[in-house]
Amino acid sequence: MASLTLDAINTKVLKCEYAVRGEIVTLAQQLQQDLQANPGSHPFDEILYCNIGNPQSLGQQPITFFREVLALCDHPSILARSETEGLFSIDAIKRAQQILDQIPGKATGAYSHSQGIKGLRDTIAAGIEARDKFPADPNDIFLTDGASPAVHMMMQLLIGSEKDGIMCPIPQYPLYSASIALHGGTLVPYYLDEATGWGLEISELRKQLQAAKSWGINVRALVVINPGNPTGQVLAEGNQREIVDFCKEEGLVLLADEVYQENVYVADKKFHSFKKISRSMGYGEEDISIVSFQSVSKGYHGECGKRGGYMEVTGFRPEIREQIYKVASVNLCSNISGQILASLVMCPPKVGDDSYGSYSAEKDAILSSLARRAKTLEDALNSLEGVKCNKTEGAMYLFPRIHLPQKAIKAAEAAKTAPDAFYCRLLLNATGIVVVPGSGFGQVTGTWHFRCTILPQEEKIPAIVSRLTDFHKGFMDQYRD
Amino acid sequence: MASLTLDAINTKVLKCEYAVRGEIVTLAQQLQQDLQANPGSHPFDEILYCNIGNPQSLGQQPITFFREVLALCDHPSILARSETEGLFSIDAIKRAQQILDQIPGKATGAYSHSQGIKGLRDTIAAGIEARDKFPADPNDIFLTDGASPAVHMMMQLLIGSEKDGIMCPIPQYPLYSASIALHGGTLVPYYLDEATGWGLEISELRKQLQAAKSWGINVRALVVINPGNPTGQVLAEGNQREIVDFCKEEGLVLLADEVYQENVYVADKKFHSFKKISRSMGYGEEDISIVSFQSVSKGYHGECGKRGGYMEVTGFRPEIREQIYKVASVNLCSNISGQILASLVMCPPKVGDDSYGSYSAEKDAILSSLARRAKTLEDALNSLEGVKCNKTEGAMYLFPRIHLPQKAIKAAEAAKTAPDAFYCRLLLNATGIVVVPGSGFGQVTGTWHFRCTILPQEEKIPAIVSRLTDFHKGFMDQYRD
Repeated sequence: MASLTLDAINTKVLKCEYAVRGEIVTLAQQLQQDLQANPGSHPFDEILYCNIGNPQSLGQQPITFFREVLALCDHPSILARSETEGLFSIDAIKRAQQILDQIPGKATGAYSHSQGIKGLRDTIAAGIEARDKFPADPNDIFLTDGASPAVHMMMQLLIGSEKDGIMCPIPQYPLYSASIALHGGTLVPYYLDEATGWGLEISELRKQLQAAKSWGINVRALVVINPGNPTGQVLAEGNQREIVDFCKEEGLVLLADEVYQENVYVADKKFHSFKKISRSMGYGEEDISIVSFQSVSKGYHGECGKRGGYMEVTGFRPEIREQIYKVASVNLCSNISGQILASLVMCPPKVGDDSYGSYSAEKDAILSSLARRAKTLEDALNSLEGVKCNKTEGAMYLFPRIHLPQKAIKAAEAAKTAPDAFYCRLLLNATGIVVVPGSGFGQVTGTWHFRCTILPQEEKIPAIVSRLTDFHKGFMDQYRD
Repeated sequence: MASLTLDAINTKVLKCEYAVRGEIVTLAQQLQQDLQANPGSHPFDEILYCNIGNPQSLGQQPITFFREVLALCDHPSILARSETEGLFSIDAIKRAQQILDQIPGKATGAYSHSQGIKGLRDTIAAGIEARDKFPADPNDIFLTDGASPAVHMMMQLLIGSEKDGIMCPIPQYPLYSASIALHGGTLVPYYLDEATGWGLEISELRKQLQAAKSWGINVRALVVINPGNPTGQVLAEGNQREIVDFCKEEGLVLLADEVYQENVYVADKKFHSFKKISRSMGYGEEDISIVSFQSVSKGYHGECGKRGGYMEVTGFRPEIREQIYKVASVNLCSNISGQILASLVMCPPKVGDDSYGSYSAEKDAILSSLARRAKTLEDALNSLEGVKCNKTEGAMYLFPRIHLPQKAIKAAEAAKTAPDAFYCRLLLNATGIVVVPGSGFGQVTGTWHFRCTILPQEEKIPAIVSRLTDFHKGFMDQYRD
């Protein structure tokens, strides 16, 4: 047998966990293979992957304009052909030409500047300015293969040892816990308050920061996910101001996960970037370090497979910026299609453009459907015995609390698994619905949750509701104390 | 000023260096801006980037068939349109349909399996089998955004502390030294023998391994770059067998950088994968752990901007494989266009296919031109006073040794720079040609080199030769002892 053994590899890798693609998903893949090999072998026809924010895997169609531009940039030689005008919209052809003109030598097959193509960063900065009404600098933009590598890059920079702490919400998106573990740092938790719709209390931040300091941890940064993942809340503007002041006072880098900025479903809440909030408070480059993460994988477009994204890095000293650039340069650059798509997302068709009608119809249909799906699933969950689900104001997830009976908790113990994982496994086996146990995100000890996306296509939602409801009733009948 | 200072960040980041996009390139970018703002401000009209293996940035055109398939996969709705047959080749349309059928829901915008789309991995495995005449397993393939993230992933797995050593050739491609530094390991150097065309001697491997062991280093792996970067040699089959035996005996993971497998320019040498060599010696999964890195950025296609690549991982215990999968899953998946391109590169058009003629004409034109460029530049360098350049048998680089006069070395000292960096900077200022000092790759102490790509388009080579020759003569006239 090959000689490399577990005790010889990096212990930080061993410690890292990532539940979104963890055990339950492995089981789901096995069931899917079963179903293919032996149709009818399970009490369901298909596996419904509600474990991950992956809209197009569940049938969501891409935005036509975006794909037209990508195809033309992939094969620019058809731009000169007459047939192309019959196949592609006029403004997609024009946009592809503009983008190609921004790329040195029109070479979409070349490595770009390590921060990304300058012209595309100009477009993105202009999009941020239009969104925030405050200046954005293209030199602050680092384009990355989705948001995840950007998060890793910042963790790599900020974490030198287990003495370096990063404050993260609990529950959190497990990319953060995984990245902190891989880089050998300490996750300093702060708990969101489920009772107030996953509220973020400054008193809790202060308490946890003091506790970490008392253990000798140098806390470097605060992660805020807004809209929340897995918790779906959208922060109020006043709350954001308090967070900015807290980071400023405590000298913490504010790592702002803003990848769900287009996913807000309630009329009384709006997305505000943390940079906009800080600038509106009169704070500039000298006052606070903010990194804003954005991705093409989320929003209404949900282009997960394209791996596009960026971070906007403000308020860092030049010598730190050089270090960030150096780390980016070791990986040369992010993929050019993803870079192009990030520029399209931040500068979509405008009123008067040839594609505006189809673009806005596609966008509105997706976002309004997501809002309806969120509401239907939320209501369904809240109608279940012992289940309480906060409103999904934004993002793509529901994170219901399940009050599990003692008998279920004992059964989970006997099965050597966490009670919420036990519930999720039975749910999968009975219905084919894949959700992620709350323990993968963190939760108050003794409480149990799961994360379920709102992404199955709308016509499937009634069946999901009825399968979920039937399962839950049966589960409670079996385990009710 | 923002509070984060250099002494607070990860010291491993501070230590990391990556010369391929280092100081000399920053200077080149400044000169380019000068030229744009004030044409005629320098004694040259353009900057020639010979610092990086980035063919399409210097005018190389993409392979038409590959780009047709990518465009169709980006915008599949045109597959049903009649105009498409006029714009795209028949087999590109067919291949795009096949690929879309391999993707669950035809969703090129969805995250895939964390190792990459299964159908594409099947194609790649079949391509490896056709190349090696030994079986390849799609479950051994991990698709990645270029080869660099795959290298980082393996370093992350293998390096837990500075006690973990990775053997690397000197000179080496600085991704390796950068990645080892970022992960906090120890680079255990072995020197290639310049006098024998950058020969890799097993006695040198043994000597350096023993030395590392005597310092308490646990050597985990051996990096071999074949064809060589920056050194351009192609290993002989017998030499590869010795290397396989060495790794087997010493229990080292063989990290085989095989990204230049298509770039061989001499009739008496052929590329053989290390896996093929080991299988031909009768060694199987139980005998040796090999990771083969491949990229879409190199070869004749040179699709650097697409960030496609894979590693083929063989001879690891299941529990180690699980850890590799877990690390891959934290980043969800590599970009789908890059995945598709990797499958095309490993399974290009075949005799009889509609595109075979254009494909093979494009491929042959690029490879034969690269061979001519390598020879012309090699001869030109060898005609210079005090310069000796080994043959470029493969890859994309020349790595000439420059015997610098004492007077030049003193002048470099006075300018507080390494002598080879001093030479490269003067070359850039005089000619606009960007090359990378040998010190960025490592070299025997007291010897000086630079790396220069063979990638400028053929019509530019005579001017490069004459500018380089004139500069070198002037340099020697100024600094000859």
